[in-house]
Amino acid sequence: MALQNTKVILKETPTGMPVADQFKVTQADIPALKNGEVLVKNQWLSLDPYMRSQISARHLSGAVLPGDTMKGETIAEVVESASEDFKPGDTVRCFGGWQSHAVLPANALTQVANNIEHTPHLLSILGMPGLTAYAGLIWQAKPQPGETVVVAAATGAVGSMIVQLAKQQGCRVVGIAGGKHKCDFALNELGADICIDRHTEDLGPALDKHCPNGINIYFDLIGGDILEQCSQRLAVNARIILCGLAADYNRTSSSPPPGPSPVYFIKSRATVFGLVVYDFEARRQEFIQACLPSVNSGAIKIKEQVVDGLARAPQGFVDLLSGDNFGKVLVKIN
Amino acid sequence: MALQNTKVILKETPTGMPVADQFKVTQADIPALKNGEVLVKNQWLSLDPYMRSQISARHLSGAVLPGDTMKGETIAEVVESASEDFKPGDTVRCFGGWQSHAVLPANALTQVANNIEHTPHLLSILGMPGLTAYAGLIWQAKPQPGETVVVAAATGAVGSMIVQLAKQQGCRVVGIAGGKHKCDFALNELGADICIDRHTEDLGPALDKHCPNGINIYFDLIGGDILEQCSQRLAVNARIILCGLAADYNRTSSSPPPGPSPVYFIKSRATVFGLVVYDFEARRQEFIQACLPSVNSGAIKIKEQVVDGLARAPQGFVDLLSGDNFGKVLVKIN
Repeated sequence: MALQNTKVILKETPTGMPVADQFKVTQADIPALKNGEVLVKNQWLSLDPYMRSQISARHLSGAVLPGDTMKGETIAEVVESASEDFKPGDTVRCFGGWQSHAVLPANALTQVANNIEHTPHLLSILGMPGLTAYAGLIWQAKPQPGETVVVAAATGAVGSMIVQLAKQQGCRVVGIAGGKHKCDFALNELGADICIDRHTEDLGPALDKHCPNGINIYFDLIGGDILEQCSQRLAVNARIILCGLAADYNRTSSSPPPGPSPVYFIKSRATVFGLVVYDFEARRQEFIQACLPSVNSGAIKIKEQVVDGLARAPQGFVDLLSGDNFGKVLVKIN
Repeated sequence: MALQNTKVILKETPTGMPVADQFKVTQADIPALKNGEVLVKNQWLSLDPYMRSQISARHLSGAVLPGDTMKGETIAEVVESASEDFKPGDTVRCFGGWQSHAVLPANALTQVANNIEHTPHLLSILGMPGLTAYAGLIWQAKPQPGETVVVAAATGAVGSMIVQLAKQQGCRVVGIAGGKHKCDFALNELGADICIDRHTEDLGPALDKHCPNGINIYFDLIGGDILEQCSQRLAVNARIILCGLAADYNRTSSSPPPGPSPVYFIKSRATVFGLVVYDFEARRQEFIQACLPSVNSGAIKIKEQVVDGLARAPQGFVDLLSGDNFGKVLVKIN
């Protein structure tokens, strides 16, 4: 019997918050390799909030429609190769999808360097979430020592990295997270100066209290009311990184909800940057070189939440969207 | 009989669009000069949209309350001086207000250089409106040849300058103005490539037609629906200058209306700049030196609408807010 591929497909397009039943695990044959192609076995799959936009066909990276295999970035092992660039046993990073195996052209694979001590880091603090944080905070916002940086979803994959990078730059960091457990982690493990618990605190007054001189940098992964509240409290020459719309991912209307009044950006002479991480792909090595020593030494860390097996990936994804996860969500593919 | 000052005071704070009756012309004695003070006779007064915010006490530069003399920038002649820095007959630029005379400390006056051929230009294309246009377009947006620049209120004091500066930089300029007369002026005199008539054209489809590759730079003086429509049509790496809220000046609610969805700025990787012209005061001479040759040669021009006498200033201001003016509105003070 030929090798079978186990994969998770989208069964129906969700309206509002997805449920696990809208996904389905199926089997398929693995096609024979053509010249230049590589067969990989996925080991680790990254679950990310942007996937919610893909299944509504609203994401820049393309749509996932009913019947399609879910997309996603993976760490994988080469099983069979029809390319000179890869050989069986190589560890690679690729968009292998929510499946056990993938056949990909060799130029869609990146060899994992052997100085990466824990390969799933390439899906988190040394991967796309880390690059997102680094590009927005370091390259766009250019933080200065003593500035106040506000980070929502502060214990998530991107937020964790922003908190730690901002502390390395000498900033004062005010995190926002849901629940005492996450807030304690932001304070004690990531080094945030303050963490506002959005489950128990009223955000506006809490920001007033903890940002008495205004917000110098707000890194937005959420949109909605958190963006509004932060925009009302900007310091002069503030920078805002717009990089995610989690508050908006489950909306059912076709037009996006409005944003903050321009008056806040004028009064604060703010600079607002729209960030799409793909634009920084060419600088990925620069980012990895800058962060690898801190990651290998443990100075920069990430909490990983491991979902065991592809069959549990849909529920892991739903938990991620509802905030019921903690840290970077990875699926271990057996 | 001592010299009398004729001045325009705010009689009552308007709600919504102001009417001329909410202002009043009165007389007052002119106080004796203290050491370091200068008495000036105003010759030209600039009327500007930001004054609408001042009389609602919503402007950065301070409030004008009922009973207060209206504020404004003037070109004036020194009548009497108790400062070594100025002598009678000097021409100066200052915030002389809506009045015939003003007593000001010497450090609030700027000597007008004798290479300014037409002194009211220091209130328009060589003054605050010109500096606003220059700072936002040249220093913040950094236009590149061939880029599409959209300018609303394209025949106003700031808009006129943006159109002409953008053309000097080799950009394609799409103006927006109200009425055929203004559109013809934008096309034939200012050099805009296209001018959309907001009285007769539907803005969204017109922008679609005239910006087929999207908008590279939008210089916003208006807010509201024009900002929304332009934000929906940004090219990748677009820049937006937020610099005025004319659509919002007459609002009666206490909270500002929302702005465009952040999704537009993310998708276009836009950079949005809040611009307050006062921040660029230190670079005013750099701006004047850059633009003076073009202004003196007539390559950069401004249409002036002259209101004759202080008594007509209130109606001139109302006309400015309602768009019933054309070009830079100046009050000639007799």
